[in-house]
Formats: sequence, C-alpha cells, structure tokens
Amino acid sequence: MSFFNIKIVSAGVAGTGIISYFLGVPSKGASSGNTSNPHPNGANNGVSFPGGSNGMTFNETDINPSEYFKVGGFPGPIFDLSQGKQFISCYDRERKIPKWVIEHITRESLNVKKGDRKKSNFKEDQRIPSTYRSLLKDYFRSGYDRGHMAPAADSKFDQVAMDQTFLLTNMAPQVGEGFNRDYWSHFECFVRDLCVKDFESVRIITGPLFLPKFNEKTRKYEISYEVIGNPPSVSVPTHFYKIVVGEKFSNDNMKNKGENIYVAGFVLPNDKIPNDIPLTYFKTPIEAIERSSGLSFFHQNVSNKKVKDLCDNVSCVLTIRDWSDKMKSLPPPK
Amino acid sequence: MSFFNIKIVSAGVAGTGIISYFLGVPSKGASSGNTSNPHPNGANNGVSFPGGSNGMTFNETDINPSEYFKVGGFPGPIFDLSQGKQFISCYDRERKIPKWVIEHITRESLNVKKGDRKKSNFKEDQRIPSTYRSLLKDYFRSGYDRGHMAPAADSKFDQVAMDQTFLLTNMAPQVGEGFNRDYWSHFECFVRDLCVKDFESVRIITGPLFLPKFNEKTRKYEISYEVIGNPPSVSVPTHFYKIVVGEKFSNDNMKNKGENIYVAGFVLPNDKIPNDIPLTYFKTPIEAIERSSGLSFFHQNVSNKKVKDLCDNVSCVLTIRDWSDKMKSLPPPK
Repeated sequence: MSFFNIKIVSAGVAGTGIISYFLGVPSKGASSGNTSNPHPNGANNGVSFPGGSNGMTFNETDINPSEYFKVGGFPGPIFDLSQGKQFISCYDRERKIPKWVIEHITRESLNVKKGDRKKSNFKEDQRIPSTYRSLLKDYFRSGYDRGHMAPAADSKFDQVAMDQTFLLTNMAPQVGEGFNRDYWSHFECFVRDLCVKDFESVRIITGPLFLPKFNEKTRKYEISYEVIGNPPSVSVPTHFYKIVVGEKFSNDNMKNKGENIYVAGFVLPNDKIPNDIPLTYFKTPIEAIERSSGLSFFHQNVSNKKVKDLCDNVSCVLTIRDWSDKMKSLPPPK
Repeated sequence: MSFFNIKIVSAGVAGTGIISYFLGVPSKGASSGNTSNPHPNGANNGVSFPGGSNGMTFNETDINPSEYFKVGGFPGPIFDLSQGKQFISCYDRERKIPKWVIEHITRESLNVKKGDRKKSNFKEDQRIPSTYRSLLKDYFRSGYDRGHMAPAADSKFDQVAMDQTFLLTNMAPQVGEGFNRDYWSHFECFVRDLCVKDFESVRIITGPLFLPKFNEKTRKYEISYEVIGNPPSVSVPTHFYKIVVGEKFSNDNMKNKGENIYVAGFVLPNDKIPNDIPLTYFKTPIEAIERSSGLSFFHQNVSNKKVKDLCDNVSCVLTIRDWSDKMKSLPPPK
C-alpha cells in the first residue's frame, strides 16, 4: 500500500522499531509499486460495516470478522498461477520463489529441437505485483545460480516455450557448482531419458523445501536458510523435490487406458552432491514431501492398483555426462 | 497418501535416504491418516490423459501440464479457512500454525461476560487433515506456550466463542514468560482498551512472521527458527504481527459512514520484551508486513483519505498490569 509508505515511513516512526529486521539495508525503490489484489473481493470499493452497534445492547450478529474483507480485501495468501506452453508455475509471494512447477514432456516433444537456449534471457515476471516480485538484482552476485524448476532443455520444441522457462517465477536460488551445474543437471537428464526410453509421457512436479535439521548445540530441530537480495527477499531452499509421474501407453492404440501410472519422489539437498551417490539415496515417500511442503500430490481416490513404484519398474540410475565443454559455450550462469 | 506409506516406506528404500531430514525421529503414527484433498478437482475420479501422442508426429497440443490435475489433483497450497463466532482463521499446512486470524470486537461485545476461560480446553482441530494437523503433543514440553492469535479474552461474550479460540488452528508457539504471559498480553489488553475508550468497533489481524536476521559470521541474511514436535512439525515464528483497524461511529446514528478507518501495524519479536519498551517501537508499516508475509491487507482502492494513522489519533501506550496473582488461578499455560 503506497499510502502507507507515504504516511507512515515518511513520519519516521517506523525507523526506530523492528523495521530493520524486515528491510535489511533499506532501499527506496524496493518498497514502491503495485500491490493490486487479484482476489474477487478486490472489486468491492465501499468501506462499510453493516449491522453495527447501537451503543446500547449487544447483539451477537454485530460480531462479524468477515466484514473486514470489505475494507481490506481477502489478505491471501495468493499463489500466482501461470500457465506456459510446457509448464505451470505456482509462485509463493512470501518466499519469492515457486511453490511448485508442473511440467509435461513426451517422447515426441523431446525429439523436436527448434528452441535455442542462447536466444533466451532471464526475465522478471511482470505479472507478479512488484511488492512480491523477485528481481534479477536479488540473484546478482548472491553466490547462487538462478536454478530452473522446469529445465530449459525440456522445452526445446519451441523458442517461446523455452523463453518461458527463463522467467524468474520458474527459478529458485541453487548452489551452482556440484549441484545445479552437476548432480541436479544429471538428474534432469535422467528424467528426460526416462521419457525417451521407458514412458511415452512424463509429468514432473518440482519445487523447493525448507527442512529442519537437528542442532547439536541447542538439541533442537531448526529450519535455517539464507535470504538473498537487498533488502533480503528471495529465500534459498534447503532442498528441492521432484515427483516424476510416468505413463506407458497401451500397445494397441498408443493411448494410456488409465490403468497404470509410475511414480517416484526425490528430495535432494541444495548443496554439492558427489556424482557417486546413487539417485535412489534421495528417493522419498510422497507422504513425506506432502507433510513438509503442505501440499497434496495425489487424490485420495487414486488407488494403489493404478500407482506403481517407478524405480521398481525402471532403472533409477543417473548417467553422468561431462558438461565441462558444453557449459563453456553457455551464457554465464548468473 | 496412505498407499505410499504401505508401498514405499515398507520397502525400506526411503530409510536410507534423505528421509531423516523430514521426520526427525520417525514415529509410526505420524505418517498415517487422512490426506483428503478439498480442492474442487478432487471430485475427478478418472486417470486419463486425453490428446496423447500417436508415436509418430509431434503436436504441440499434446503438451498439457494441467492434465496432471486429473491424476493428482491440484497440489495446493490449501489454506484451511474456518469461521468462528468471533474470528476467522487461515491455517498454513506447511508450518502447522495460522497464516492469519481476523477478529472483530465491539464495545458491547466486550461488556458481556458469559464465557469462562476455565471451562475451555485446548483442542486439536479435527477439520484439518491429519497429515497437516498440529497436535497437542507437538506443544507438550516444547518450552513454548500455545499462544492464542485471537485472544480468549476477546470472546468472553459467549462460551462457545471462547471455546473456539482454544482450537490449535488459533495457536502458534510463543515464548511464555516475558512475552505471551507479559508484554504480548498487555498488548492484547491495549487493543481491547482501544475498543472501550476510542473506537466502537475494532477488527484485528494477527499472525506469525519469519524474518531474516544478519549473521555476523557468514555476513548474510538468514531466516532461522525452531520446529517443535516429534517428528518436528510446528514452526516457531520469529515474530508476530498485529494489524489494528478501528472505526469511530458518527454521533448521529452510531453508524460508521465509511469515512474513516484508523489503522496501525505492529511487529513484535517472539521473545522476552521488557515492559519499559514503548509499544510505538514495534510500529511497522503495513507494506513491510505485506512484503514479508506475502499477504495484502488493504485494497488498492482504499484511499489515503479514508485511512488514518491510529497512533496519530489515540495514545499508543501500554498499560502494564500485574498478572502474577491472576495467572496463578488459570490452568497451566502449556
């Protein structure tokens, strides 16, 4: 709310208080801009509290907390969904990174190579209100890569589709060397290879996690993560999950009869991972990813018969490729 | 998804991997239960991917990430809204505490004293699916109070209304001595006093924040907080915000003409606070609370003319009451 900036910040009251916790090194530009509320209630213009008290007797119907929505609107949280050609992202306004990104790849889509990564540029997503938008400068010199959730290489079939993967609403800060440019990259290749070798169609959900760790000193579990940008805005996940949902088509008409889906969930730490750690080490029950993310990934009515363990049916082993030459020809990773 | 428990956990694969990060000391009971998905898509029973590939040519319309929703449902995040008599809570399934609680108090409602705190008990909220539900045992011996977001004392007009404030969906872990039982409690009294003295009607939004702090060692901003329970489930906020929205009624008919609302936002650390720190020290621009919570609290079209700074119009000073005798007669705070 820009009027609060004008009214309260300029009065200097806030500067004496807790505000330093929020804004780090305050920057003028960061607090201005559009904070439009896309909630349907946003259309309500009036400030009125019907009912009200007559100052004499108490009527229980005078208590109506939901009337606040008429003044302030529904506070949210609002998670900004955007549909691209190859993926859908769900953006978390608090942490300024996606909550999840859902992709679709097929054997045929991976065969078409019309998109060129060199023609794509990292872009801020103007659809996010500026108060909540992650910025290129947040990542600049942060020490972290702008890590794709939906990989650029999954969208080679079309330049527009590939460009869309470079929006910051598809990014989270990732450790570069040893992770984004290495193990995580091999992992992404593994998923594409699955689609080429084993499944005609694969859908993938990718997102960040913030997991607790036991603190030996305090003997307590703590969640601890860096926040990059100035003021600090973009949360650096402790882990990333990927849920891979493959389907095999029936032989007769190349369609899935809805009989079988093959599923595996993986959780990798946002850290250097040696190539010799087997991928199965990171295999994680969907239930655990649901508990810690607060999300739910499967209908209760998707039966056990339909869902098969992907790694029981195909080989969950990474192929380690040497990217060193190829990476040299790419734009700098940050 | 219980079938994942049966299928994957029992296979023992997960035990070797990253699962220890999630579950701390794994407990059998914690991972079972209802994970129903209340999203409208939850009604779709079929597992089908229309379109599909014919194995020969690539058609762009075969790429459809949103078809995943037919298999898995919309992942969320789902924030569970529940409407009580005096407040509405919005529960965060990831952190297992409210995202916000909106209350309404009036001069008349505060005058009626039919509810008795001693008759109320802390209760788990059965409306939350068990995977995401906070439990009494999470708080037990955690060292933290079960801190009311909507205070019990705001609902004295009715026993049912007061009982509702004792649901865990209205709770977050708070430092007891020096905060929940002291400064925070005085702050809650201040808000009620405002309603008695200055405003016929007050609406209050209360919620947790997780704010970054500068780490002198790493020279970086970090968000760090404890997670209580076994397995660790319930996040302990670093701060709490309260946004107070007061209205004065016109003299002629005791109704607000929608001309003026009086607003102030406060952010307090979840820590011991000496009584001599003035409340205005914690006054914080709404914009800063919006940025760090990801929420938006006012319509863009609520004009500057309608919104006045509450502390410019009334005295924002706490009255320190001595609770020591009164607290002794209350049930133990944990």
